[in-house]
Amino acid sequence: MSSSAEIISVGTELLLGNILNSNAQFIAQQLAQLGIPHYYQTVVGDNPDRLKRAIAVASERSQILIFTGGLGPTPDDLTTETIADFFNTPLVENSEVVADIAQKFAQRGREMTDNNRKQALVPQGAEILYNPVGSAPGIIWQPRSGVTILTFPGVPTEMKEMWRQIAVPYLKSQGWGQEIIVSRILKFWGLAESSLADKVADFFDLQNPTVAPYANFGEVKLRISAKAPSEEAAYQIIAPVEEQLRQIGGLDCYGSDEDTIASVVGELLTVTQTTLSVAESCTGGGLGQLLTSVSGSSRYFWGGVISYDNSVKQNLLGVDPEALAQHGAVSAIVAQQMAVGIRSRLNTTWGISITGVAGPDGGTEIKPVGLVYIGLAGPDDQVTSFAHQFGERGREWVRHVSACSAIDHLRRKLLSDPLIHE
Amino acid sequence: MSSSAEIISVGTELLLGNILNSNAQFIAQQLAQLGIPHYYQTVVGDNPDRLKRAIAVASERSQILIFTGGLGPTPDDLTTETIADFFNTPLVENSEVVADIAQKFAQRGREMTDNNRKQALVPQGAEILYNPVGSAPGIIWQPRSGVTILTFPGVPTEMKEMWRQIAVPYLKSQGWGQEIIVSRILKFWGLAESSLADKVADFFDLQNPTVAPYANFGEVKLRISAKAPSEEAAYQIIAPVEEQLRQIGGLDCYGSDEDTIASVVGELLTVTQTTLSVAESCTGGGLGQLLTSVSGSSRYFWGGVISYDNSVKQNLLGVDPEALAQHGAVSAIVAQQMAVGIRSRLNTTWGISITGVAGPDGGTEIKPVGLVYIGLAGPDDQVTSFAHQFGERGREWVRHVSACSAIDHLRRKLLSDPLIHE
Repeated sequence: MSSSAEIISVGTELLLGNILNSNAQFIAQQLAQLGIPHYYQTVVGDNPDRLKRAIAVASERSQILIFTGGLGPTPDDLTTETIADFFNTPLVENSEVVADIAQKFAQRGREMTDNNRKQALVPQGAEILYNPVGSAPGIIWQPRSGVTILTFPGVPTEMKEMWRQIAVPYLKSQGWGQEIIVSRILKFWGLAESSLADKVADFFDLQNPTVAPYANFGEVKLRISAKAPSEEAAYQIIAPVEEQLRQIGGLDCYGSDEDTIASVVGELLTVTQTTLSVAESCTGGGLGQLLTSVSGSSRYFWGGVISYDNSVKQNLLGVDPEALAQHGAVSAIVAQQMAVGIRSRLNTTWGISITGVAGPDGGTEIKPVGLVYIGLAGPDDQVTSFAHQFGERGREWVRHVSACSAIDHLRRKLLSDPLIHE
Repeated sequence: MSSSAEIISVGTELLLGNILNSNAQFIAQQLAQLGIPHYYQTVVGDNPDRLKRAIAVASERSQILIFTGGLGPTPDDLTTETIADFFNTPLVENSEVVADIAQKFAQRGREMTDNNRKQALVPQGAEILYNPVGSAPGIIWQPRSGVTILTFPGVPTEMKEMWRQIAVPYLKSQGWGQEIIVSRILKFWGLAESSLADKVADFFDLQNPTVAPYANFGEVKLRISAKAPSEEAAYQIIAPVEEQLRQIGGLDCYGSDEDTIASVVGELLTVTQTTLSVAESCTGGGLGQLLTSVSGSSRYFWGGVISYDNSVKQNLLGVDPEALAQHGAVSAIVAQQMAVGIRSRLNTTWGISITGVAGPDGGTEIKPVGLVYIGLAGPDDQVTSFAHQFGERGREWVRHVSACSAIDHLRRKLLSDPLIHE
């Protein structure tokens, strides 16, 4: 099979930058999993002439055209009729779709409007791609030999459900998913992309698997991708390269694929049968949120205190008012006292704390924006703190990287525990 | 000027779905602000032949081609040489770039490699688009009449700095930014997209300004866009339509543009000179994080308790063990006691609480995934709670919508305060 797919995202809101094209990312991941080659993506607005030009280009260079957006009931939803028009095919009303939409509206106790009825018009000869969630169905259509069209609504939740429930079985029935591309992402924390890239430069020349670096929000990743007839075969190609890259990464390599720093620390806490609480100042809850993004985190995460105001640091965490007065809230000593305080109040094995200047205001010459102290308290009255300078890269950046770094310090501490290596 | 711009994002990581195309969104917003028409976006991998095909298509239908990605030092960074090759132009080494890169490396105490030297090769006749942040410069080049090329690195922070510092002044010098498109986004919470769309359907036919709806993560938005010679003139076109839409939206319209529910509530708390604390269970800190995403939130937000474990609900919030035993942690009474408890412990005007089943596990027949109680405690021992069923739409969806809804309940409460209407 030499077909390749092209994603055509239809929506003026994309061209105005009002929304991120997360649909294209999702479909791209899905195509890779099915081993469907995918060389181009196009974004075009709600304009029939330009959409036709995009279809003309795409139908020359790609064989499977996947559209998202423009299936709704409003007048600027033009995808279906424009595709039909491009291929000189009349629209016909599909009675099953009319019935389906009418039923969905009846369930919600609402009347179907003429606008909704428009959603039942499909090109003659097209099959329906049912929408299990919303009212807008899509189509599967082969308007001419060598061109297959699939359309999806732009609402991500609807598109994803339709993709999983309807499109994947269809594509597999067409023989896709035989030779697949599998990627493993190795994830690193605590080193710069360029320094990792230098260490693993030789790997970038490999052909199968390929190795490529990228970075975002303080995290560095290496993608190892292999092509093979099965997942198992692909992972066998990946395994030796992964092993070498993990060796080179050492402690900085914290996990792979769906791992997050929070999920990895969650596993370490579970293995060591220890528990955790947090005391947060500048992150305002973000550290707890990150830890509890892991389903099942209640096994090891007890809770915490958001001590945004200094009175809360004193009253709920027992931070010494003199330490606050003398060193300020953003200091090593206060970070340590916060960590010790939360650990003892919540009676957990570990306590971690964050206090810093997230900015954009509040920085001084001595304590500039981006300065963050992380405290870590553990058994036997151990307590340490770490000073970071995360720079003036935006309030959310500093807060996110602070929360990840705090969890990473605990990860390194847990990995040094003899229990882990038994 | 009848030129239009096309964004060409180069990178196999986009086609594999490893990253979101946030660069395209940023540039799209910038083009709209400068009034540069923008009808197409293309994504293509690190492959010279396909990149050439994309350039062929783009240079026929668009006049300003904006490339991101593929300028780095590694062998799969091919954008510059492929563009030169497409336009049959040799590459020449730019000595100023060599000097600039050498200096940047010297500053970091590192040696420049041959790979980095490759970044100094530019098509003959092209001007340099300096990179104030990283080592990879871009180019501005008119390879033939009616085609202007600008290239940027793929790293978002570098791309954005180059855009702001270098590209915007250049584009303005070319006469752009004379007629501009201005958008106002009205934001709504607490109603469905379709129900809002029904109420304002007549507005979708307007030409200048245009009105369009969209929705994500429980929030519904209306975008009002006007084209005019100046920002002031555009806002004058927008104003009467905005006024009517706000009237129709009523209390559900919480703000516009950069407003978030958290920032709007922050303003209301500031105006009423009242303070807030939070008690969080299933959101694990996400409510506090959202509230403190607003710079200056320390004026009114004191802090909170993340009471993930029931022992924390009892010990730090004073929740009655009998209420927990009888009604469970996810109940109206516990939500109310959490709100009352945090308000009294932290001595704030308001206390809000969240307790619910975020899923995917932990749901029961009586208390299914998505069931969330929000508690709200205020002056004169007022306390209420609200039950929501947010559905099984994913753990992060339930948590995010819970946090927004909790803040929205406080917003509606604050808006009913006589002080606000003085």
